[in-house]
This record gives sequence, C-alpha cells and structure tokens, in this order.
Amino acid sequence: MAFAYLSTITLEEAVGRLRQALDHCGGEPRKEAVPVTESLGRVTAEPLYARISAPHYHACAMDGIALQASVTFGATSTTPVTVQPDEYVVVDTGDPLPNGCDAVVMIEDVVFPEGFDANDLGGCPITLYAASAPWGNVRQIGEDICAGEMLLTSGVEITPAAMGAMLAAGIAEVSVAARPRIGIIPTGDEVVPPCSDPKPGDVMEFNSTIFSGMVRSWGGEPVTYPITPDDPEAVRCALLKAVAECDAVLLNAGSSAGRDDYSAHVVAEAGELLFHGVAIKPGKPAMAGMVDGVPVIGVPGYPVSGIVVVESLLKPVIECLLGAGLDGGASVEAVLARPCTSSLKHHEYVRVRLGAVEGKFVATPLSRGAGVVTSFVKADGIMEIPQNSEGFEAGERARVRLLRPLAHIERSLVVIGSHDPLVDEVAQIMHAKWPQLSVASTHVGSMGAIVAAKRHENHCGGIHLLDEATGEYNTSYLERHFPQGGVRQVECVYRQQGLMVAPGNPLGIASLADMARKGMRYVNRQKGSGTRILSDYLCKREGVDPALIYGYDHEEFTHTAVAALVESGSADAGMGIYSAAKIYGLGFVPVCEEQYDLLIPDYAWDTPMVQALLEVLQGEEFRARIEAMGGYRVESPGTVRRHYEARRQI
Amino acid sequence: MAFAYLSTITLEEAVGRLRQALDHCGGEPRKEAVPVTESLGRVTAEPLYARISAPHYHACAMDGIALQASVTFGATSTTPVTVQPDEYVVVDTGDPLPNGCDAVVMIEDVVFPEGFDANDLGGCPITLYAASAPWGNVRQIGEDICAGEMLLTSGVEITPAAMGAMLAAGIAEVSVAARPRIGIIPTGDEVVPPCSDPKPGDVMEFNSTIFSGMVRSWGGEPVTYPITPDDPEAVRCALLKAVAECDAVLLNAGSSAGRDDYSAHVVAEAGELLFHGVAIKPGKPAMAGMVDGVPVIGVPGYPVSGIVVVESLLKPVIECLLGAGLDGGASVEAVLARPCTSSLKHHEYVRVRLGAVEGKFVATPLSRGAGVVTSFVKADGIMEIPQNSEGFEAGERARVRLLRPLAHIERSLVVIGSHDPLVDEVAQIMHAKWPQLSVASTHVGSMGAIVAAKRHENHCGGIHLLDEATGEYNTSYLERHFPQGGVRQVECVYRQQGLMVAPGNPLGIASLADMARKGMRYVNRQKGSGTRILSDYLCKREGVDPALIYGYDHEEFTHTAVAALVESGSADAGMGIYSAAKIYGLGFVPVCEEQYDLLIPDYAWDTPMVQALLEVLQGEEFRARIEAMGGYRVESPGTVRRHYEARRQI
Repeated sequence: MAFAYLSTITLEEAVGRLRQALDHCGGEPRKEAVPVTESLGRVTAEPLYARISAPHYHACAMDGIALQASVTFGATSTTPVTVQPDEYVVVDTGDPLPNGCDAVVMIEDVVFPEGFDANDLGGCPITLYAASAPWGNVRQIGEDICAGEMLLTSGVEITPAAMGAMLAAGIAEVSVAARPRIGIIPTGDEVVPPCSDPKPGDVMEFNSTIFSGMVRSWGGEPVTYPITPDDPEAVRCALLKAVAECDAVLLNAGSSAGRDDYSAHVVAEAGELLFHGVAIKPGKPAMAGMVDGVPVIGVPGYPVSGIVVVESLLKPVIECLLGAGLDGGASVEAVLARPCTSSLKHHEYVRVRLGAVEGKFVATPLSRGAGVVTSFVKADGIMEIPQNSEGFEAGERARVRLLRPLAHIERSLVVIGSHDPLVDEVAQIMHAKWPQLSVASTHVGSMGAIVAAKRHENHCGGIHLLDEATGEYNTSYLERHFPQGGVRQVECVYRQQGLMVAPGNPLGIASLADMARKGMRYVNRQKGSGTRILSDYLCKREGVDPALIYGYDHEEFTHTAVAALVESGSADAGMGIYSAAKIYGLGFVPVCEEQYDLLIPDYAWDTPMVQALLEVLQGEEFRARIEAMGGYRVESPGTVRRHYEARRQI
Repeated sequence: MAFAYLSTITLEEAVGRLRQALDHCGGEPRKEAVPVTESLGRVTAEPLYARISAPHYHACAMDGIALQASVTFGATSTTPVTVQPDEYVVVDTGDPLPNGCDAVVMIEDVVFPEGFDANDLGGCPITLYAASAPWGNVRQIGEDICAGEMLLTSGVEITPAAMGAMLAAGIAEVSVAARPRIGIIPTGDEVVPPCSDPKPGDVMEFNSTIFSGMVRSWGGEPVTYPITPDDPEAVRCALLKAVAECDAVLLNAGSSAGRDDYSAHVVAEAGELLFHGVAIKPGKPAMAGMVDGVPVIGVPGYPVSGIVVVESLLKPVIECLLGAGLDGGASVEAVLARPCTSSLKHHEYVRVRLGAVEGKFVATPLSRGAGVVTSFVKADGIMEIPQNSEGFEAGERARVRLLRPLAHIERSLVVIGSHDPLVDEVAQIMHAKWPQLSVASTHVGSMGAIVAAKRHENHCGGIHLLDEATGEYNTSYLERHFPQGGVRQVECVYRQQGLMVAPGNPLGIASLADMARKGMRYVNRQKGSGTRILSDYLCKREGVDPALIYGYDHEEFTHTAVAALVESGSADAGMGIYSAAKIYGLGFVPVCEEQYDLLIPDYAWDTPMVQALLEVLQGEEFRARIEAMGGYRVESPGTVRRHYEARRQI
C-alpha cells in the first residue's frame, strides 16, 4: 500500500492544534482530593491558602527566662538591671511565651546572685547586663506562615518541603490534578509480546513498556491495551474503548510502512483528524486527532521514532491535562566531535553522548537508526537540528538538551577508541566501587582514539596498531601523531585475534586467502580500526586482493557485531578477538596475539575518572574477569609503558 | 539540661565515617528480582548482558524485493540489469530476509516491463538501474544489540528506554537493589500529630512527612514509627525495633535543646556512636552511629535543620545501600542580590530564590531561621558558604545548587518590591493560564523595588511612595532615582491603608497619636517600605515622636504578618491594607487611599513574563479577584502611566 501524508506541518503547528482542540473540549484538569501525606509529586489543582499561622503561638526560641523587654531597658555591662522572681518566668525552647511577656533571655546571659545557680531559677532575683529587644528570642506567630497567605498556586508539583508547609498551615488534604489516564494501543499482525526466543519475523512489542514509563515519569497513569491486529475494524473498536476509558490515547502502529494510514483513516472516521505528518525526524508519520473530546496520537512503530513523537506530542497534552509545566530539561552547549548533517526538510533530533573533557562538553552523535533503541539508553542528550539547517560541522557548537543529570556527565570517563568487551567490564568494576563515576564508551577504532586525543575529546581510548615494518604495536603511531608529546601509552592486555568461523569450522577456513574463494562471505571491521589494519596487513602478506573477498566492504563496528553475523550464518568468517567468538560459541582460527594498550592524554591524567581507571586495571577483580572472558593475557595492566612528554612548540 | 557536643567534625569527615562503618558491615545492596515492565526508576543490582540480539533476525527495512546483491552488480542508469522472478522475493518491511538473499531493493526503485505493474510483482521480470550493496536496506542481526553485550552496569537507574532495550534483548526480569527501608522515629513530649487546631505549645509533627518524601524521591521506602516521648528507655525501645526492621534509621529529636543528648547516649549504649556535632549550619547537633550494623542518624528537631541533615547524611547512606550515585544536583553561578555573612566556624547552607534577569542569575537569600519551612518551599537553590569563609558581598558571584529545573527558573517573573497579597493572586492567574511561567516574589518594600531595578535584579516591583511635598505617588521618586530613565510606571490598583486593630476597636484607637499612649503596643513595617514611609509621615503630621511609640522598632515584612500579630493580641495596632485586616477579621481605621503602581524596567519589558503580567492585569479575572479581596479600587490596571525613556548618558 502506498504511503500518503495528508500534509506535513511543523511541530509547533502540530502542538498548537492539539492544545487548541483540548481547550475547545474544556481543558480544565480533573481534580481529586488526597491526604497531604500522600501528595508527593502530585500537581496542585487549586491555589492553597494557609488555614493557620506557623508558629501558631508565640514560641520561646531559647531555654532561659521570659519577661517584658521594658524591664530590661537601660541594662548595659556597666549598668546592670536586677529582675525580681515575679518579673520573669522560666521557659524552655518551644514553650508558649507566657502572658505579659514579650522577650526571652537565654540562660547563658542570666547572672545569678552569690550563692545561687541555675537550679534556683524562678526563686531568686537575677541580673542582666544587656537590654532585650521586644520579641527577642521569640518565634512570633506567623514567622513562617501567616494564616490566609497563599502557600502554593495551582499547577505546582508538591515537594517534601511543601508537604511539611501544608501540614504546618493546618491543611490535611489537598486538591490535586488527577493523574491523566493514557491509553496505549499496540497494533500489528507481526507484533508479539516480549519473550526470550522470538521467531524470525516476530516483532517484539516493547514500545508500550517504553511509553508507559514515559507516561509514569510525567505523572500520568498508563493503560496498555492488548495487541490489536492490522484490521481497520479491530483498530476502530480498540480505539473507541480506549477513548471511553482514558484522557488521551496513543495508537502505536506496527513497524511496516503503510500501517499509519489505517490509524489516520480510523481517527478521521471516528472523530476529527488534526494533522497527519509532522516535519520532524525521526517521527515524520506522526498523526493526531480528537475523538469524543479525547486526543488520539498516532505513533510510528520504530521505537526511536515513537519515543520522539511521544515526547513531542504527548508531553504537551499531559501538561494541559495536569495544568502544569513539566520539566523542560536543562541544556548545555557542546562541541561536536563529528560532523552531523541533516535535511533542510525536517527538524531533526539526534541522540548524542556527552563528555566533559578539559572544561568543555563534547557531543558525539549516536546511531540515527529509527530502530536502535539502545541509542536512547546510551544517550546523554538530544541535539536538535532545526528545519532549514544542514546540520553542524565537527568542532561547531550546538545546544544539547540533557537526558541525564549534568553531575553524572561531568563524572563520566569518556572512552573513545578501539572496541573490546573488557571496556564494559572495567565500567562495571569502576561504577560498583565509585557509584558517582561512570563510563561512556564509543567504538571508533584505534585511529579514532588518536584523533579524539588530538582534539581533546576523550579521556582515554584503546589502541592496538601494528607497525608492519617493526612488528611493534602503537609506539611508532604515537610518535608520528604526537610529535609534541603530551600522551601516555598505558599497558592493558594482550589478546588473541583470529578468524571467527562457524562452530567446528565446517568450511575449513585456515587464513584470509581462503576467503577469496568463490562463494565465501566475509564480514569486516570499519576502516581505522586496528582489526581492519590487521586484515589489510594479512591480505598483503598472503598476497590476496581484498577486492576478491566478497563482503570485504561489509563493515561492522564491534567484535560482537561481527561474531553475531557469523553466528547467524550470513557471513562465513570475520576477524575478531577470542572472547567475542567464545560468547557466540563460534569456531576460532588464531592469527596472532596483539598488544592492546590505552592511550591517555596528559590533559586527562589527573581526573578522578582516569585515576579510578588505573586503580581498576591494577586490581584483582579486573584480572579475574579478564580470565573468565578468555583469550587474554595480562602482565602489568595499568602501568605506563611510555610517557611521550610534552615538548614546548618551537 | 546543658548542651554538650562530644566534638564537632566536618561534613566530609562525618560522611566518611558513615561510609566506612557501612563498608565494614558488608555494604552490598540487598537485591530483588522484578519484572522489567515494573522496573522503572529502580537501580540495577548486577551488570545486565543481552540474551538475544536485536533485531534477532535479518529484517527487511523496506517494502520491495529481496535478492542477492551480486545479481545487481554492474547495474547503472545506462546499463540496467534485468532480474528474473526466480531471482527475487517480494518482501514487506519487517519480514525476515529470505534465504539466499542479502539485500533489499525498495519498491520505488523497481521498473516493470511494458504492461506490468506492482500487482504483478513476483510474477514478472523486473529491471534495476542501480546496483545494490550487500546488506543494503537490511536491518542486520545485532544492529541494535548483540547477544552477550553488556547493556547496563550495576548501579544504574532504569529509564523507559532501558526497559525497552532489556525486553528487546530477551530479558524479562531484572535484579535490582531493594528499596532501602528507612525508619523514622519522631520523639518529643510536646510533639503532636498534625491537625488544624493545635493548642499553644503543641509542636506539630510534620518532619516525618518531609523526610518520608525525601526518602521516596531517592528510591527508598520510609517507615514512620509512632511519636516517642522524651524518655531514654522509650527511645531505646523504639530504636531497637526500628533497627531490627530497617536498613537505616532517623531519630528525630524534638525542637528543644538538650534533647539530642538523649539520642546520642541511647545510640552509644545500644551500639557505637560515630560522631555528635557536625560543622554545618543549620544542622550542627547532627549525630550518627551504628547499631547492629544499621546506621542511625540523629536529626535536629527544627525542620530546616532536619532537611539539611537528612540531605547531607542520609542521602550518602542511601547511595551506599542502593550502590548508585543519586542526582547530585546541577548548579549555576549567580550574583548575590544582598550581602550574606556567615560564621567561620560552619559550612553554611543558605536557601536562595533565583531569578534569570538580563542573562544572569540573581540569588536572593531567604530567611535563615531554622524553623522556617516555607524557605524550602520558596527556595530555588541552596548556596553553600564554606567553613572559613565570612560569606559574600552583594554583587559577588556564588555557586548555587538547584532545587528546581533550570527551565522553570528561567521562566519565572522576578517580583521584588512592596508586599501586597494581590501579587500571589496574579501568580495564580498567570500560572493557570501559562503553566510554564511562574512568579517568584520577595517582599522588600517600595524602595527595595527601586534598588533592585537599578541593579538589574528584578522584572518588576510594587511601589507606593508618597511624596510629602506634592501628595503625589511614585513619580518624583522615579525621576530622582532614574535620572537616565529606562523604567516604566505601570498602573496597578488603589488600595485602602489604615490602622489594623482588634475587632470592634476596643481601645478606641483613632490615629497614630493614640499609639504613643502608655501601655499601647504598635507593630511596624520595615524601613524602606511604602507603609513605613506612610507611618513616618503620619507621625510627623500628627506631631508624634516615634521613639514614644512602644514597638515602633518591631518590624515585619508583610501586611499579613502585621495582621497576624494584631490578631494574636501581641500588638494593639499596626499599619496595613484593608485586605490583610479582612483575612484576620480585624477592625480597621482607614487612613488614606494610596496608589500602588508597578515599576517595570525597560530591560525586562519584552520578556514573556512581563508581557503575561500585563495581560493578567488587564483581564477580567484580576478585577474579580481584587474585588473579592476588598479594599481595592481599579481603574486601568496594566497600562503605562509614564515611560521614563532612557537617555544616553552624556
């Protein structure tokens, strides 16, 4: 079925139409009364006025004596005043100020006559060497809250302190906006509930779980309906039921194109279609309408598109239903680590990883695939590229909306370099020991580590660069790329590289030369990775023309991705490390043991993250994990092989 | 009872001792397994590895045909390639890639022979004008997630996207840190449950509600125990019960000094006292110990001290119990609107209001009273003044830790000037109409409005400054204080000022002159307020020496605070507006009708907040509310009386 959008409008226009439609249908939040003690995080539905003052009585603020300040007037260090027992009352902190008194003198300022002490207080005259100000050391009625004062406006989220203030002001129950009920209808013939052994072609339905979580985090109550097949009548029935039960409805299409048309037609027939097609990427097929006064939003099937659409269109609807502005998200300015181009036609949302390196934020764009849900797991922020912009060059500054607390980003070790699963194990050990530290790793190969360090964009990166001339690893590359020095080469591990093949190696693959045979399919790593350099080197050594190897241009970014493809049978071999082959139970034809070092620039050396990294590498737990993974050998991980000291430029 | 601290240590030292004690007692988070669909916001207890890849099969990414890319090799716009029906398979998006195929050609790129169309697909040869790359338009196995990859380390909060990624990776159940159970024991003979009609001397127990909310917001589970009387044995029993049932315990002393000693002794006897006394303000009497491996924290009774201690000491404990770093809170640099001095002895926490004015953040310190819980309701942030610092001068820059999202602060109307309850009503109307906007008001009197505008620290402020010479309001003050112009004088209301007296005016007070009589007690407003200027003027006119009026130096900052004191009987009269007298049911001796304008600096005029303010003032709802409050008269609120245009400085 062909794919037709009625029109494509801007996001602002789309949100405006939804808001207007809601206004026309009443727009007031539903209210409910809840006990103050259970109101945390709820949104006030009405302005709240104090019923009583706090303190509700004049309270003594010190242990000591209460009196009328006027009896102390004139007292100084040279002209003390004596106060008789009938002129003062003994009080403790929190006591009501006795009648006729308007000040408290703290016990430390009371001087007793010869032969008397604090135990005689109340029964002896006392001497004061300073005058009291009226209302001194008294917490007056209303010092905190005056009866009748507005404590909170409507539309405000209730904090722990606000709960305390309400109780102090004599308020036991508060009128809050009812949690908006958001119906979620997953649709699609191929869509199945999540499981651990799906069949090929099954699309697991996890979008409703993601959307439910988003709805909950905004103070709504998600209601997920059963998966509805791709049949307009079934969708119509599900929609009408949800509209009757909820304040807003998400209609989540399957991932197949053409599907969205159903939703739009069903909505147009059951109510009014507001728009179909929004100039955002991902998320263009988004649609919305009103059915019986309830907003219905059509959400594309790919999870990443879905998240962007739910954030862009449902969040403003929930704000209307709550009568409150939700956290708009802080943002920072960041330097782009890589160019990021965009079409003029869309407002684009790009997930980025953020790192705080040398006092600036560095943004690395993540996968833009609409199906790559992990890009939202790894993302620290969202960079928006406006419509009519072609995007950003590397080094340009862009604003990034934060998805994580800034403090977490500031304490994140930025690893950019060669992939190895051991980086994840290091992250685990580090985070378990120092929960405030975390690791953000990006796999761009060994040369990528060098480029990032030159641009001051990472804290460290794995490198395993073989110098064909000397057979030595890394040293000559670092000498060449850092003629002015300023980096350290830190020992990490030795690891086994080889050809990953089907279990038992049924095709008898012994070397790269075998891959040039007719019918053989290779899967390669990306240019600039140490493993690709190794493949290229082996081709040269074995005299194989890479152009003859089918799939030599089929590039993957990680050892595990290569292993997964070999395991699936879509490639017969790929170069990779033993530990990746082991995870997938593959056959392994060893090629060499290589030296996997870490490049650590001087500017990052003294950060707590790098110091923690070194401690992890030197520890017992790292050795134990490495051994369990297999294919590694360690000598003195975490020690400096060589410091390329910074030289002043001449 | 005298107050004795065992010693006073720094906060870092205190937290260090608690962490170390926890480490000694095991330190591993308790774990529990929960379904992924119910794991939102929980913290992972173990690293999570993908069970299956996602996609778990090679999925067609387009509607079209699947084939082996090699059959298309060589196809160009001038040398098309024809593909026979047995060489391709018709596919839809999401279909598994058929056996033997390694690429998908989208339907739009397929050319049909004369007389055939898309309906014949599968039964006719087709022509292609471009070669396919192997794996083109295919979502390969593991494109998103590779089986065996680490998805999340332990100690990470689970987001909606992470829930989706787990389900996609075949994970249905996740091991998370159990919510730490935090016992809260309120103590004190004078402490009573919250109610709306407390007796004098009753201290309402709302701290446990505040602390419960804090615990919940950090992912813990609060357990509040009954109020325990001031008896060491009763406290000991309550503590032992809580220690047996919880992971950590808060022992909340009553507000009376000396009380804390009980707690410290009880803890020292039942287990080990780690410290008693921390060099922080507020919060100095804080105490902690370990009883049966469970940390016990002694929290002072005043709510503000309590909040600071729970944040400073319990939060790190919960981080240990969860194995995760909690949101450390973003911070901004702000300019101090007023000086803020501090003792060298303490690390001080000062609540501040923040406003974004002219591209900078302005911090106004709020009440530092330990009992003023509303200071935490109004606060936008916490400014820390380190030990050994004497504080900050006005105009100095300081770091402020945020308590609210920055976006909210950036969209807040900063009102600094004369107090009137109508400001709260304006805030309510504005926030209800534009939930993203809010109002932050500080009451510093009319002259305070002028000072703030001169320093570019507010967006507007109420002024009612009487020129004794002309009888005119505001104009001459603005001419004098803004000789270079740059401000607008905007009409707001006319309001009734007078003497607020006891109901029925039993003392027959007719004028300020009566207040100089023996035994009469006055309550005044602070210097710089328009109402104080009015009082001073009336004294002069009536020939009364203010020094003869008892309480003339007793200064309050708001009309309601003055009304509350008259109502309580602790003053016989105070100057204020009719609406405040009405709230408290007081008698009212009218003195004059005054003109209450708004001063709006040019730099703030075009902000959305000020434009919204003007719209509110001009609206019907404002008139209705003002009328209901009583004592006001409106003509054309929200119109400019006079624009003092900016002149270039010569």
